[in-house]
Amino acid sequence: MAQVEVLNGGAAEKAVVAFTAVKPQLVVEAPKAGDAIEFYKSAFGAEELGRTLHPKRKADQELPLVLSAQLELAGTTILVSDCTDESAAPVKTAGTGCMLCLETEDVEAAVAKAVAAGATAEGELVEGDGACCGGRVGKVKDPYGFTWLICSPAKKCAEAE
Amino acid sequence: MAQVEVLNGGAAEKAVVAFTAVKPQLVVEAPKAGDAIEFYKSAFGAEELGRTLHPKRKADQELPLVLSAQLELAGTTILVSDCTDESAAPVKTAGTGCMLCLETEDVEAAVAKAVAAGATAEGELVEGDGACCGGRVGKVKDPYGFTWLICSPAKKCAEAE
Repeated sequence: MAQVEVLNGGAAEKAVVAFTAVKPQLVVEAPKAGDAIEFYKSAFGAEELGRTLHPKRKADQELPLVLSAQLELAGTTILVSDCTDESAAPVKTAGTGCMLCLETEDVEAAVAKAVAAGATAEGELVEGDGACCGGRVGKVKDPYGFTWLICSPAKKCAEAE
Repeated sequence: MAQVEVLNGGAAEKAVVAFTAVKPQLVVEAPKAGDAIEFYKSAFGAEELGRTLHPKRKADQELPLVLSAQLELAGTTILVSDCTDESAAPVKTAGTGCMLCLETEDVEAAVAKAVAAGATAEGELVEGDGACCGGRVGKVKDPYGFTWLICSPAKKCAEAE
């Protein structure tokens, strides 16, 4: 967190941040992520690289929800998740929709630079093995209404690739 | 169009369709696409590969709107467009939001296969030099609310890459 403070203002704007991947993340109405994954396989020939499930928490919840499934399509990874407000989720999904997941080794600097350029940080940076295959995750909303997840590189995806 | 008829039903579901790229397309409230492009450059270090403008049609329209700008970010192409209902646009944008652009040599077969799997075709296939850098474009909505553009490969993007 110290780095965010150091990088505020002009320093953050000029910081060079390298991104290693961009992954669209499709957040669907729970518990339809499993069905959506099957649909993307049959409609577009997507291949599933892996999936992370929610820890089962509620007695009335029959099936564990999908925290993040990694699908490969035309050499690109697409993430599919159930929309959830469960506290187990490292990054709350405000609703269904498409987010863009940016991977970088330096999450703090990337968030600081985006905020310096006009984005709004949403919540704190968190550590978790959920969104984007694990690691550190920050979330910013850009001035045009799009949500970007800024995450450390996906370990599980990297192994599968 | 004959191919779509041949590929209906079971044949479409089994068709092998190769996709060559997946590109998120961010559709912003017009005329803010130019500002959004500058923002993605300064916030994320995106590089602009090219942009296609709307033909200027209305006397009261000062600046031509952005039909499709191609930005490179972490080796992925992201498209940014002004939301418009102009008749010049090959594919109408129903509103602002994120679409996913899938490139393939066989647009008809890909649309037929997606529809056989449960997607809804929106409008006819069109030819145009607008969305996704030109060529044939079809549009389907999947059962989970996401819009996919299915397009022939981008000539302009390919040249720039």
